[in-house]
Amino acid sequence: MTTNTLVGSRALTPKGLATRERIVAAAAELILEHGMDSAKLEDIQAAAHVSASQLYHYFTDKSALILAVIDHQTEMVLGTQRAVLDRLDSFAALEEWREVIVRSIDSMHCVGGCPLGSLAGSLSESDPIARTALANSFARWQGLLVSGLQTMRDRGELRPDIDADALALGILASVQGGLLLSQTRRDSSSVRTAVDMSISYLRTLRP
Amino acid sequence: MTTNTLVGSRALTPKGLATRERIVAAAAELILEHGMDSAKLEDIQAAAHVSASQLYHYFTDKSALILAVIDHQTEMVLGTQRAVLDRLDSFAALEEWREVIVRSIDSMHCVGGCPLGSLAGSLSESDPIARTALANSFARWQGLLVSGLQTMRDRGELRPDIDADALALGILASVQGGLLLSQTRRDSSSVRTAVDMSISYLRTLRP
Repeated sequence: MTTNTLVGSRALTPKGLATRERIVAAAAELILEHGMDSAKLEDIQAAAHVSASQLYHYFTDKSALILAVIDHQTEMVLGTQRAVLDRLDSFAALEEWREVIVRSIDSMHCVGGCPLGSLAGSLSESDPIARTALANSFARWQGLLVSGLQTMRDRGELRPDIDADALALGILASVQGGLLLSQTRRDSSSVRTAVDMSISYLRTLRP
Repeated sequence: MTTNTLVGSRALTPKGLATRERIVAAAAELILEHGMDSAKLEDIQAAAHVSASQLYHYFTDKSALILAVIDHQTEMVLGTQRAVLDRLDSFAALEEWREVIVRSIDSMHCVGGCPLGSLAGSLSESDPIARTALANSFARWQGLLVSGLQTMRDRGELRPDIDADALALGILASVQGGLLLSQTRRDSSSVRTAVDMSISYLRTLRP
């Protein structure tokens, strides 16, 4: 749970927390599926089964709700990533990680692209606080990749002199660019091909 | 000039064409700098020095204007890319191409990211016609990269058995993901590092 969520949920009852989470989940889903511009507060209210006054009780404005959506999607995406990257012990595991990403976008028929990447693309120029929050999310994601690469290095799967930070950034870019192309083309093969190229490069860095 | 532009500009006088182009350029700039959601028709009118009725004379609605913006940004981005990729004869030229991208985002202080990528991220779920147009733009960009890689292959800089389509897709993903990370972090080193990784991989495919 991040700072934003803590601030937003301080002093809420369990029932209040559940209502707040229902609003955030509904907003996250609507924004992912219809885009930032098309996800209206009225639609979020209807999807979360709350009144306008309930929504404003939890979120003073759309910006506050968007920050909570960023937290929500960050925990969701990084939770999935962490589960796979924490046990990165081989190139087979790296390929399994790629398939987790491909299955995830396939399950959405490529709608929404990356839940964090699409928020970054939509919000970076209109909401500087959201942009900073998303930059932090990407830094955490990169950190998970760094740890995974270090694990592989320590197990002798990668050379001792690899630049784990630069490689993690390059891999994250291939995921983000691949997902954007998959979203635009409605074709999950784009992200598979893009991440495959990153993995192929890593194979050249074996001892 | 693409089909959309032709349809939109049919039967326009040179003065009309110039006014239309001024509106499109103003819209493209505002959307890039402030995001799709924040670029209002009134702001576009003011920036292009046209009245509402003039704007509606050229574009029946915001969707029509957005399609013209996609055309405009596609020609701009692919024009720059083509100029560099058409003379791709060495790894030095490939690094110069990477620097063109880095300089381009640096000149904007990373605002707006990729003019096509940010449109794709903002529009893919709310405007299916825009999404298809952007998928075509990405396909053309990938095609320029394929030609560049084939040139390098034919000159003996890359192995004869490279899969130019897959490599071009992976490189385009590294550009798109790198630019999204640069936009979000306000740091052009992200796209340089991401594209560097693609180039490093290509170096492993030398004969």
